[in-house]
Amino acid sequence: MTTAATIDSFHAIVPAGGAGTRLWPLSRAGNPKFLLDLTGSGRSLLQQTWDRLLPLTGPDQIHVVTGAAHAAAVAAQLPELRHLIVEPSPRDSMPAIALAAALIEAADPGAVVGSFAADHVINDAAGFRADVALAAATARHGKICTIGIAPDTPSTAFGYIEAGAPLGLADAPGAVAVTRFVEKPDAATASRYLDSKAFYWNAGMFLMRAQVLLDHLARLQPDLHAGVRAIAGNWDGPQRQSVLERTWPTLTRIAIDHAIAEPVAADGGVAMVPAQFDWSDLGDFAALGTLAPPPGDNTLFLDASGLVRAPHRKTVTVIGIGGVVVIDSADALLVTTAEHAQRVKEATAAWRSRGREDLL
Amino acid sequence: MTTAATIDSFHAIVPAGGAGTRLWPLSRAGNPKFLLDLTGSGRSLLQQTWDRLLPLTGPDQIHVVTGAAHAAAVAAQLPELRHLIVEPSPRDSMPAIALAAALIEAADPGAVVGSFAADHVINDAAGFRADVALAAATARHGKICTIGIAPDTPSTAFGYIEAGAPLGLADAPGAVAVTRFVEKPDAATASRYLDSKAFYWNAGMFLMRAQVLLDHLARLQPDLHAGVRAIAGNWDGPQRQSVLERTWPTLTRIAIDHAIAEPVAADGGVAMVPAQFDWSDLGDFAALGTLAPPPGDNTLFLDASGLVRAPHRKTVTVIGIGGVVVIDSADALLVTTAEHAQRVKEATAAWRSRGREDLL
Repeated sequence: MTTAATIDSFHAIVPAGGAGTRLWPLSRAGNPKFLLDLTGSGRSLLQQTWDRLLPLTGPDQIHVVTGAAHAAAVAAQLPELRHLIVEPSPRDSMPAIALAAALIEAADPGAVVGSFAADHVINDAAGFRADVALAAATARHGKICTIGIAPDTPSTAFGYIEAGAPLGLADAPGAVAVTRFVEKPDAATASRYLDSKAFYWNAGMFLMRAQVLLDHLARLQPDLHAGVRAIAGNWDGPQRQSVLERTWPTLTRIAIDHAIAEPVAADGGVAMVPAQFDWSDLGDFAALGTLAPPPGDNTLFLDASGLVRAPHRKTVTVIGIGGVVVIDSADALLVTTAEHAQRVKEATAAWRSRGREDLL
Repeated sequence: MTTAATIDSFHAIVPAGGAGTRLWPLSRAGNPKFLLDLTGSGRSLLQQTWDRLLPLTGPDQIHVVTGAAHAAAVAAQLPELRHLIVEPSPRDSMPAIALAAALIEAADPGAVVGSFAADHVINDAAGFRADVALAAATARHGKICTIGIAPDTPSTAFGYIEAGAPLGLADAPGAVAVTRFVEKPDAATASRYLDSKAFYWNAGMFLMRAQVLLDHLARLQPDLHAGVRAIAGNWDGPQRQSVLERTWPTLTRIAIDHAIAEPVAADGGVAMVPAQFDWSDLGDFAALGTLAPPPGDNTLFLDASGLVRAPHRKTVTVIGIGGVVVIDSADALLVTTAEHAQRVKEATAAWRSRGREDLL
């Protein structure tokens, strides 16, 4: 049993968006990945994210940012949530995180904020909390601090972080400088990265003092910064909704990686704590397959293996296909293999081109 | 347009049985293969069999033999059917055909009878009728006459017929002697058979004078013959049901192939007409796949091919699997490939061993 202690003035920001089209038809536009219990734990990925963060923050210091279409579902899944920011339209992660950071900085000057995806899986919650504490300590030194995942395969599905020299921080001994962020590599490059042991997967976790984030933003994306400041300044007044609806659509659509992490890394302002915990982004059915429980009573495999999801009481029989992926639902059945898992998004595009948005 | 003329004193016997477990879960114990419209024609295999035979016989001269469980469904599918024999229990094909033959001989002495499976597919109905006419002519010479299918693949799924010398019949010029029947061969033997051009698939079609059949039966299976005669003798009297129920369970459970065709062939009494028509027994999903229509609007194949059957309005997406077999229904989904089609019966056995007779 580990002791779970909150981190002083630490606030979590959870952008809850993304269609998860590579997990279609489990994940749908109206019922996206983060709302689903994909691991059979009884809790959705969003709820598991909440459960992991809560011991570090308490319920008052978690901000969830989501689209209007999912606000009611998020509120229903997280009845203790106090801070739900509803985006009028999707603008990628930077506006969402910046608005939350501005609201947090106003309420708790000097706060450290951390952004965490709503739809990733981490089983070692204690290890996660220990590393977040180290990253928060690093952030207090003025750094943008990410938590990097040591790769165990030459994945081409993730961006990478190149680690540099140790920072020598007494309160975060594992923290190192970040040389650069790199986009998803090709297979040969990914193999070199794996062999080098200097590259880590970018899991989208960024911790920093809210003021540090806003200062970088003011310098690097001044229009975006001004818009976010305008919205935040009116948040607790009668103009909140009108300013939000007028300003939000004008904000630059950009991810925090491109807006802040990459340029600040080039200036030596980014640090990394290497994760000691397990992690999966459940990015496709191959990833989900490695976490799925063994087939239950309603599944029969004859010379077969893989991932099967079907409605309650429906039986599924698979003969002679290894690494099969069978996802059954009332209106859509998907059959493929783990090897083709990345192509599922092509299927959603094809159905869209057939005019079948109802399936998506 | 071909002229369809009935054959004089010709009666068809259609044993409608067999679970079709290699077509599970399309075919179920309660809704077996012969009752299903597997080819998308709008008519079940049994109805298509009726449609093919009707021009040769008229509605008065077709006997269908089926089990009690399917009698109502058969009657509903064939409203014009006059002669429905309901077996108290399954005894394989010989008792069913012999009882029908005895009833036909009593009503129409000198009649020729022909047995035809209820669940095969023949598209060239005119060619079928022409060959049946030739086989009936051969049968009038006192022969047991089968119609053999020239193989186009070295199939191990069928029994074979070895053709001998031409019989030189003026009214059936293509008819040849049958040297022997052989059981399903191994792959090497099947290849030799295919190369030799002397072997034909046994499609279970047998034509003969009813009296010839009964005489062979009296000689080769005297107890079975006596039992069938006892039932037939009481068929139109008040004792029909009691004699049937008392006698039927005592009849030898045997196929016409073993009871009659094989021993009579050894004595030179069997002839064969080589079929000029197409034929499929739809014995498994590989066979069904070759006859299936192309995927419709509700199916999406990405680098995929094969057979998909799903409920109305359900969409099916297959990525990266060639020769896939996807059979979806409310309670059971089967996913395999054509290459493993023969193993579907293993799946039904496995579900039975799990106590899931409800699926079968």
